Amino acid sequence: MVMSEQGKDPEADMIQSMFAPLTLGAQGSYGLRDDVAFVPTQSPGIIVTQDQIIEGTHFFANDPLEKVAKRLVRRNLSDMIAKGGIPTAAFLSLAWPKSRDKADIAKFARGLGEDLADLCSDCPLMGGDTSTVDGPLVASLTMMGKPTAANGQPVLRQGAQVGDIIAVTGVIGDAYLGLQVRQGILNGRHLKDCLEFNMAPFPPTLDIAPLIGRYAHACLDVSDGLLIDALRLATASGVRIEMALDLMPISDEADNAGFPDEDERNLLLATGGDDYQPLFALSEDDFDAFVTAAEELDVQVTAIGKCVAGDGLALTYLDEPMDLPITLGWEG
Amino acid sequence: MVMSEQGKDPEADMIQSMFAPLTLGAQGSYGLRDDVAFVPTQSPGIIVTQDQIIEGTHFFANDPLEKVAKRLVRRNLSDMIAKGGIPTAAFLSLAWPKSRDKADIAKFARGLGEDLADLCSDCPLMGGDTSTVDGPLVASLTMMGKPTAANGQPVLRQGAQVGDIIAVTGVIGDAYLGLQVRQGILNGRHLKDCLEFNMAPFPPTLDIAPLIGRYAHACLDVSDGLLIDALRLATASGVRIEMALDLMPISDEADNAGFPDEDERNLLLATGGDDYQPLFALSEDDFDAFVTAAEELDVQVTAIGKCVAGDGLALTYLDEPMDLPITLGWEG
Repeated sequence: MVMSEQGKDPEADMIQSMFAPLTLGAQGSYGLRDDVAFVPTQSPGIIVTQDQIIEGTHFFANDPLEKVAKRLVRRNLSDMIAKGGIPTAAFLSLAWPKSRDKADIAKFARGLGEDLADLCSDCPLMGGDTSTVDGPLVASLTMMGKPTAANGQPVLRQGAQVGDIIAVTGVIGDAYLGLQVRQGILNGRHLKDCLEFNMAPFPPTLDIAPLIGRYAHACLDVSDGLLIDALRLATASGVRIEMALDLMPISDEADNAGFPDEDERNLLLATGGDDYQPLFALSEDDFDAFVTAAEELDVQVTAIGKCVAGDGLALTYLDEPMDLPITLGWEG
Repeated sequence: MVMSEQGKDPEADMIQSMFAPLTLGAQGSYGLRDDVAFVPTQSPGIIVTQDQIIEGTHFFANDPLEKVAKRLVRRNLSDMIAKGGIPTAAFLSLAWPKSRDKADIAKFARGLGEDLADLCSDCPLMGGDTSTVDGPLVASLTMMGKPTAANGQPVLRQGAQVGDIIAVTGVIGDAYLGLQVRQGILNGRHLKDCLEFNMAPFPPTLDIAPLIGRYAHACLDVSDGLLIDALRLATASGVRIEMALDLMPISDEADNAGFPDEDERNLLLATGGDDYQPLFALSEDDFDAFVTAAEELDVQVTAIGKCVAGDGLALTYLDEPMDLPITLGWEG
């Protein structure tokens, strides 16, 4: 369906004008004025991700709308990167609350457009559907992308091999600390970056995707918690992951947040989720090459575990075994 | 994102089990257990439609959930057919109200699965995202399809030529009459089919899509009202459409609904919308071939107008000019 019908309705035209620039002139978007889009493709296929963002579930009602849109883009982009994909087209379904000013859709569109341009390598918005809802804001983004892996396929959760290193980009736990601040549990004075990260997380640069496509045997993005997502990768791949929680990368803010026990802190941050960093398995022989290439992109890569025969997830802290917590992350 | 995370959560596993059969074993769906899907494609591209269905906006809270899902599929399928496309993959974003029983998602999934199988030529559900909302049900379906037109492109709103016939499949107005019944304005005793059509509209069989791809110069589906959609086609194509409203096909139920004036009745039905029938322009020379082929599919095709030089829309009734109503349809 068109983003807004091309009728005589000035309101629909307003919405049209907000989103049409986001097509970046892509021919198959037809300026959002037809009923469908035509997305150019090649063989063998395209990677497709689809994630929603829901007021009251994924964001607070008073969050700035630019940030809400960016959070939506980055949830999808994070999946795309983790699969070694480069975004090529996006589609937006927007259920806009009747209680909100329609003019504020412009703020949402601005955040969307900025991220699609800046973080997604000028990915065009090619279509979607805008309607109203007598309730909270619901938005769903569908992102399509081309694979960078040599086999022309996405990097999957399955594929990790015994002997592989388990690595992660960036840091873990900032989004969780930011959420604690937003909920009034922690004092936010020294957690400003965490707060920002919680509102609109930062996956690594898209330039990391070809490296994942080239080197990773298996990958997913850490969205529900490092531990649960590591377990998912292990289960899908049919290996056991041994993870050294003392090696888990955290930010300076997290390090200075005043937790009394470092092992307890890391365990907490490893179950917080919303990190949007690729967690991946790669051959030990390839690790140095990956790190070197990632350094050129200013992306921090940390080895935090290895794949062994068996199943499940095991933790250590400074080489001592550590019990798994009851909850490994968001299991919804 | 996966339809439901493969964790230890029995509720998530339940949702997974509801939707996984709808993949029909499509390889790139990974059984809905990875973070993305891989949709097989060929050059030059794919047709993409995306439509939402929102409780309180597009359906009533007490509508059967199977019908709600079918309505969602058919809104998208109708666009696909009108563009000469054959569905090849579907993605579902579902924001499920916290106030509804999660077990009822099975009803929604059943309706979805039945329509994707029966009406959409075994179109697999290849991914999506299920989450909860503290508000009304919101669902968005993304449908991808392959073009049947010889140029490998979708049939657009633009392309109608001076001299073309304007034709429509099926009948117009049943959904509107059904809505009137549901709103308590009309008595439903003799409008049972209309009521049913309103709840889950019936686009023509998918087998009509290749005919549209072959013959139609321009096409869209009548969703907001015959008049406004005809105007859109005219405007996009740069032609004027002269429509004979007395030729507009209506059902026996509509004919027997007891409207005092037939011209007023047809005008009303022509602005009601939700008809989900392709409205298209084709060469006069091709019309008989189209009708003959459509008859073999049990699809009624009616010529209701022609394209002339100029712009806009003009109506006649039994060859007498007729004023356009103030509202041509849903202009949102």
